[in-house]
Amino acid sequence: MPQTRITLDESRLPRRWYNIVPDLPEPPPPPLHPGTRAPLGPDDLTPLFPPDLIAQETSSERYMEIPEPVRDIYRLWRPTPLIRAHRLEKALGTPARIYVKYEGVSPVGSHKPNTAVPQAYYNARAGVRRLTTETGAGQWGSALAFACAQFDLACDVWMVRSSYDQKPYRRTMMELFGAKVHASPSPETSTGAKILSDDPSNPGSLGIAISEAVESATPSDTRYALGSVLNHVLLHQTVIGEEAREQLASINETPDLVIACTGGGSNFAGLAFPFLRDSRETRFLAAEPAACPSLTKGTYAYDYGDTAGFTPLLKMHTLGHDFIPDPIHAGGLRYHGMSPLLSHIYNLSLIEAKAIPQRETFEAATLFARTEGIIPAPEPAHALAAVIAEAKAATTPLVILTSVCGHGHLDLAAYESHLHGTLAEPDPSPRIADALTRLP
Amino acid sequence: MPQTRITLDESRLPRRWYNIVPDLPEPPPPPLHPGTRAPLGPDDLTPLFPPDLIAQETSSERYMEIPEPVRDIYRLWRPTPLIRAHRLEKALGTPARIYVKYEGVSPVGSHKPNTAVPQAYYNARAGVRRLTTETGAGQWGSALAFACAQFDLACDVWMVRSSYDQKPYRRTMMELFGAKVHASPSPETSTGAKILSDDPSNPGSLGIAISEAVESATPSDTRYALGSVLNHVLLHQTVIGEEAREQLASINETPDLVIACTGGGSNFAGLAFPFLRDSRETRFLAAEPAACPSLTKGTYAYDYGDTAGFTPLLKMHTLGHDFIPDPIHAGGLRYHGMSPLLSHIYNLSLIEAKAIPQRETFEAATLFARTEGIIPAPEPAHALAAVIAEAKAATTPLVILTSVCGHGHLDLAAYESHLHGTLAEPDPSPRIADALTRLP
Repeated sequence: MPQTRITLDESRLPRRWYNIVPDLPEPPPPPLHPGTRAPLGPDDLTPLFPPDLIAQETSSERYMEIPEPVRDIYRLWRPTPLIRAHRLEKALGTPARIYVKYEGVSPVGSHKPNTAVPQAYYNARAGVRRLTTETGAGQWGSALAFACAQFDLACDVWMVRSSYDQKPYRRTMMELFGAKVHASPSPETSTGAKILSDDPSNPGSLGIAISEAVESATPSDTRYALGSVLNHVLLHQTVIGEEAREQLASINETPDLVIACTGGGSNFAGLAFPFLRDSRETRFLAAEPAACPSLTKGTYAYDYGDTAGFTPLLKMHTLGHDFIPDPIHAGGLRYHGMSPLLSHIYNLSLIEAKAIPQRETFEAATLFARTEGIIPAPEPAHALAAVIAEAKAATTPLVILTSVCGHGHLDLAAYESHLHGTLAEPDPSPRIADALTRLP
Repeated sequence: MPQTRITLDESRLPRRWYNIVPDLPEPPPPPLHPGTRAPLGPDDLTPLFPPDLIAQETSSERYMEIPEPVRDIYRLWRPTPLIRAHRLEKALGTPARIYVKYEGVSPVGSHKPNTAVPQAYYNARAGVRRLTTETGAGQWGSALAFACAQFDLACDVWMVRSSYDQKPYRRTMMELFGAKVHASPSPETSTGAKILSDDPSNPGSLGIAISEAVESATPSDTRYALGSVLNHVLLHQTVIGEEAREQLASINETPDLVIACTGGGSNFAGLAFPFLRDSRETRFLAAEPAACPSLTKGTYAYDYGDTAGFTPLLKMHTLGHDFIPDPIHAGGLRYHGMSPLLSHIYNLSLIEAKAIPQRETFEAATLFARTEGIIPAPEPAHALAAVIAEAKAATTPLVILTSVCGHGHLDLAAYESHLHGTLAEPDPSPRIADALTRLP
């Protein structure tokens, strides 16, 4: 019987992150100043981020060392297991071999602490005392709350209201780790106040929450932290793929197909980039929600990262910065844009993308839970739906690698809707077309 | 830096369970027939359990082989990690070394599948088609639901109403794995109907739920499954301690003190029994809730395992079979009795016990979450409170071993009460005294 769980001893925890930029055939287009439209320099980012993160954001070094205090905290849950999904394969009757990198064992049950911990570390090292951020499903916010607790930083989180209402437990988790949580849009920022005065029942979006968190990061001892999209975030997440490479190598496997879900892009990048380094024969597939399909239905253009237009202009696949996705349960994928680095790689045709309807994702997740015993969060359920479709179509022993970037124990209300047949299947097309008319 | 997480490769998954009975100075008193008060024979258990489990229940063999189909499923999450709680030690300023066996990585987030899987396996092997059971916090019910899904068994769960109302997500988890869930007391059994007619808002108890599940197991293709208390359940849980022994041995540590929480006793037994085999120099401490203190405030006497008096008479530490514990958040510890085997061992003074108030348990859990990044379930929070008290008092490098038998991601409503200072601290003494007047 081949192995079920491929574990790594903590002595084999990666010592460096992988930066894909120097390995690309051309560099990604730079972010632009929203006023002058000139390329941003490192100084433009100083109000938001500490020097170490700015250096990583713009680095062209292939590898960057993971600081020991960060590795010390990673050791609380890393290396994470790689699981051969024997029982799922059997249920599908597929000749494919399916491997799942499982990030749900982290303190908050998702991959987000992989970047929250170094972000808190570099900020604390620079003398910052407080971080602000946004959160969708609450996974990023709870990760940053946990990380801030490790380095004695205060933490303020703007949580998208649809998730704030749907997922009170995530809010409690952030408070348990010592963070203060605000429903977004909130009356506490000028952005939030303006949106609420126009639409008091606005369900919020990641774009709005980012605007509020950025607006709140103005005091000199306060900086902003972003849980996805930016280069340094994608960099930190490569610890996932670096481990998976070692784990697959230990059993003499190489993936033919790497599949992960995409919202802002960090989970996908974290798993896929270390494999993109090796091989041009592996296929890479990004699974995104049909309700927020930035790669498959967006435009590749300069746009704001937030709704209010506070951020630099980023060249990315975007649905328009004021597109508000329907409140699907995969709150972590409700972002109008895609990481500029991942957008560039998609534009170079190094990866493929596929949009998946909500019901199909929960059907996949339910099958996965019943066979493998892991209840996935709604976000990686998108990847599992794509995996299942590929495995069903396979006629050869294709090696598929995916990641379950979080568990769904805090998403059981979503499963309840699925079990009772009340999941919505929204069609965002008209609103996407409308939002795209307002690109900057 | 000493290791943080001591992992075992799946090739070192234990091959046998440990039965402590032959190693005890005297055998535990037998269960008695409730009518005749004669010792039960194996035949008396046939209506409830399949032959393999009855054999294990009454076995005097020291080791029993774990069947390969059970080990196959264990491999989905086992061996579980052993964690050195460096950050907690530092926060306490203790010279003690604290090791935590973490069972929260299982499919349902607790140690319960360790016995649910073999119980489902042995029942399926005996031709049983449906299992009934009770559940308190929902951890056992979701474990059995998961296990039944692996062996194509139907599963009916009676869930204590206070938990059914407090923890709807646990119910969804059981339904996700394919089980049918009934709030207990339910109108569907004669026991439940009678209790509801006397007291329509009865919050339920494990004792009542057991009565209902037992009553529902009468069809010939249906058997009953119990998540704690019985010898075979404790036996299956020894996989925890067997792994912990190997993990500690791999770093040349032996525990001076083993601490675990007790409700029905299976988590404590699972961790402690394999260490009780070795050494009479190790201390063993059972941490129980002050609201349901069967070891420290109960009487050692023959009593019913359930409220209605359907079960055999068990010699155990009991608060009286009709004692209804207050609805504390540690629903898994709300049981009027204690495993007869563990009661016997306590009566032989091989282990100690301590009752812990609810608020102290959540203070301990919050400190553990902030330092170690694991949010414990309210049940093991009792063990952590005891660990913290012992570690604070330590003046030497005492080696403490404990278990966090489940994560608390589904118990965040309880943490919310703690953070808002609204946790109750009920005094059960008068009702215990009253219930003890009605021993059979």
